[in-house]
Amino acid sequence: MGEFEFIETIRRAFLEVGDGAITGVGDDCAVLPAGDGGAMVVTTDMLTEGVHFLRAEPGSERELPEARQLGAKALAVNLSDVAAMGARPVASLLSIALPPVCRGRWADEFMDGYRELSERHGVKLAGGDTTASKGGVAINVTAIGRAPLSLLKYRSGAREGDIVAVNGPLGESAAGLADILAGRHDTPPARIHRNPTPQVAEGEWLGTRPEVRSMIDLSDGLASDLLHILRSSGRNAEGGLGAEIELTAIPTPVSAELAVTGGEDYKLLLTVAPEAWSRLAEDYLARFGTPLRAVGRVTAGPPEIAWLDGGEPVAKNLRGFVHF
Amino acid sequence: MGEFEFIETIRRAFLEVGDGAITGVGDDCAVLPAGDGGAMVVTTDMLTEGVHFLRAEPGSERELPEARQLGAKALAVNLSDVAAMGARPVASLLSIALPPVCRGRWADEFMDGYRELSERHGVKLAGGDTTASKGGVAINVTAIGRAPLSLLKYRSGAREGDIVAVNGPLGESAAGLADILAGRHDTPPARIHRNPTPQVAEGEWLGTRPEVRSMIDLSDGLASDLLHILRSSGRNAEGGLGAEIELTAIPTPVSAELAVTGGEDYKLLLTVAPEAWSRLAEDYLARFGTPLRAVGRVTAGPPEIAWLDGGEPVAKNLRGFVHF
Repeated sequence: MGEFEFIETIRRAFLEVGDGAITGVGDDCAVLPAGDGGAMVVTTDMLTEGVHFLRAEPGSERELPEARQLGAKALAVNLSDVAAMGARPVASLLSIALPPVCRGRWADEFMDGYRELSERHGVKLAGGDTTASKGGVAINVTAIGRAPLSLLKYRSGAREGDIVAVNGPLGESAAGLADILAGRHDTPPARIHRNPTPQVAEGEWLGTRPEVRSMIDLSDGLASDLLHILRSSGRNAEGGLGAEIELTAIPTPVSAELAVTGGEDYKLLLTVAPEAWSRLAEDYLARFGTPLRAVGRVTAGPPEIAWLDGGEPVAKNLRGFVHF
Repeated sequence: MGEFEFIETIRRAFLEVGDGAITGVGDDCAVLPAGDGGAMVVTTDMLTEGVHFLRAEPGSERELPEARQLGAKALAVNLSDVAAMGARPVASLLSIALPPVCRGRWADEFMDGYRELSERHGVKLAGGDTTASKGGVAINVTAIGRAPLSLLKYRSGAREGDIVAVNGPLGESAAGLADILAGRHDTPPARIHRNPTPQVAEGEWLGTRPEVRSMIDLSDGLASDLLHILRSSGRNAEGGLGAEIELTAIPTPVSAELAVTGGEDYKLLLTVAPEAWSRLAEDYLARFGTPLRAVGRVTAGPPEIAWLDGGEPVAKNLRGFVHF
């Protein structure tokens, strides 16, 4: 059973329980309306040794030098989820289960990385739990963000005709993972893979723009994450919503195919009201010095992506990275 | 390194980072002020197989029948933390790392227990994460509560002269753990140990009473948890705060010694302005049908507990349950 099915099973079993004003299950974050028109958004993510990261070289207890980067990454993926809602991350809670062997230097370096990223974005460590582990390291981070409720972005807001856009180059992380798996640990893509940069300021800024109708962070690759938007938004549109994506428009230093199927870019994928696109792109460039890139368009139809190469349809069955 | 020291190390390293309005590190929950005088409280707790629970009989893969109870307990301990702040739990997020062997029946039964307790208290499952584990099961629950900011209870509010009180019998869970470890799985205390009852309605009600000056949930035993209140509150009192506790006043079906040192009772421990004690106790009895029990008094002095037996000092060095 894959991750997605189990979460869906749980979600359906719980739909009727509790406060109906709490929404966002199936989005990057849950949404809790607060007073004064504000809202808090909350997300959580678990990383386990041997599945999401290696702590020691396989077959030995020699520790890999990535504890600091792992500390930053554990927080970064959650800040990315908060940013994708158009919210500002304000606090995190960290739970960590540690086998005895890594309670010293490894844990200290992990915390150094976690703290550095917390400081960069002004995110308070508001609580947590430390416990023993009889197996490997397990890490869980919960991140909390704030935004005006009316400005939050969801996967469900896309409409037919929206421009599909991304806010940075894709595929570098996947190329870096390939380098690492081939033993090339120090290439620029490998460093990008180990140091994901959550789009915190960019997400909050895009949140303030009403013409941004839907948003998600690119954790599994555009081919997969855009389908989340199309399926979620398509429930509000008769006949559903699909998309056309122009592969030559994808910003990437690697192949377009790797760019749309590779995971862990942690850039933002958004859909934008077409009449406001030019102004948004100009303002974004003026604010951040890097471009928003239009890569396609939302269409009517089933939740499928039609891939174009120079405007011509290409028969590709591209799939995003499937986590477990 | 014990759990407490590592958390303290982290806490000190992070004190200056982020929004100073977010407080509560060192309390049962973090506190995030919301608009309109409201607040959200957040707490998180991780349970790992072999440390906090057994999934299968030692040395075999025969599953123990406690998955449902574990699902309820994983949520219960977090609802207890929310209740201890005087807040109402409204939502939870569940992360679970599962080895392949328990992705079927075990996981379903775990979720049944989690859902039953969620339904009982109207707590929405607002999000989560499911992932693989190369080791045992790891579970992380984050619970979120709401309360008016001005009504929240902290460990730091006790004053000299306060009545120390508990809201139910202590020691049953510890007696149940002893039964289980001796192979007696079906005794009434064993069932109490496996089914902790968070004091959700009681905590929210006590939160509305300004004469309740400090509160904590009894997870490690009164001898340990009262010291958390005394140390935290003592920082605001010249010369610090201690307490006198009358062992014969402790409500318990087991020995007073086990009652104050045993862990996992998940009742509430509170200190109350002495002039308002009688009225509070009457109102509590009228509301819940069970008594609040006065067990001692906050005194001036170092953060130590003087144990009395029939009013006479007894030389006991009682310590609460020390988790790792």
